[in-house]
Amino acid sequence: MTQRRTPDSARRSLRSRDAILAATRELIAELGYAKLTIEAIAARAGVGKQTIYRWWPSKGAVVFDSLLALSEDEQGIELPDTGDLEADLKLVLRATAEEFSDPAFEAPIRALNIELIGDPELTAQYREKMEAPVRAAKLRRLRSAQDAGQLPADTDLDLLLDMLYSPFTQRWLTRSGPLTTDYVDSLVERTLRAFRP
Amino acid sequence: MTQRRTPDSARRSLRSRDAILAATRELIAELGYAKLTIEAIAARAGVGKQTIYRWWPSKGAVVFDSLLALSEDEQGIELPDTGDLEADLKLVLRATAEEFSDPAFEAPIRALNIELIGDPELTAQYREKMEAPVRAAKLRRLRSAQDAGQLPADTDLDLLLDMLYSPFTQRWLTRSGPLTTDYVDSLVERTLRAFRP
Repeated sequence: MTQRRTPDSARRSLRSRDAILAATRELIAELGYAKLTIEAIAARAGVGKQTIYRWWPSKGAVVFDSLLALSEDEQGIELPDTGDLEADLKLVLRATAEEFSDPAFEAPIRALNIELIGDPELTAQYREKMEAPVRAAKLRRLRSAQDAGQLPADTDLDLLLDMLYSPFTQRWLTRSGPLTTDYVDSLVERTLRAFRP
Repeated sequence: MTQRRTPDSARRSLRSRDAILAATRELIAELGYAKLTIEAIAARAGVGKQTIYRWWPSKGAVVFDSLLALSEDEQGIELPDTGDLEADLKLVLRATAEEFSDPAFEAPIRALNIELIGDPELTAQYREKMEAPVRAAKLRRLRSAQDAGQLPADTDLDLLLDMLYSPFTQRWLTRSGPLTTDYVDSLVERTLRAFRP
């Protein structure tokens, strides 16, 4: 006998899925990633553990999807382009620094980074689904600066983005210091100096 | 009745401790950090779980000490100083890139980074015990370059080190690309350009 999904059961599945992803985000914020368990997610979402394992192979996979749902509004992202690259990048990095200092944001992003370091397959998914649209927007802004003569045409844009964003990310991940406006502004100024014509 | 440790029991303790730390390093390399358990460490080291919990409160703490034992030869570290800062930094970063591409090195350093992201207290210990001597050596090399007029006296050396090392570390941690000689050399050249007088 073949089993066919009725519209009702599809709707129920979707509801369970949403409840699981929401429970995962809540519990990461409350407990941190290390103490998060599939059992706790199931209990909070009001489903059985088997329902979770039917859709996701591991805790890491659920966490990833729960964060992916949050980033879906980044698909159409654009960076500001006032014609002044330095000012625009400072604006973007200051806003990101503010976001990173929000405790509600901190726990899930730490959880995601922990997953990514340990899991190359998830990293590939992250790069394609979460990072690619944001990275494309950054590259568009830099190409616009190249067109305006603010960056040389042969600039290694990947290296520029590494030098701009990695110190920011590492400082936050390793808690080596606060992401102050001064820090962020200096980072933008020095990075542009490194690549100026 | 007070219990006093005999020399024999102290020796036995030390032997158990070494066996536990060695087992931890072996198992991280074999299984990766996520699958490492206190049970597995105890079994490999030939001790009871309680022996481990007597000395360490968590898996992260054992992992940290097992890696700390490896880094003890870095206490007296000095960076090369031929008088040519660019050449010396390229040499150091190329050597570090080679070390990071060694599979035996990869698993424990990933494990350590995963621990640090999730654990502020361990991060403080890491900074004091493992990072501080290496960082001091880097700062000594940069100050020598300042004395030689290759870097301005008012250079923000912390920012310089962030811009030099964070892209390197992030690229490796997130597997966004290989740490080639070209990449490492460009990173040194651009960073020095950002801070040149």
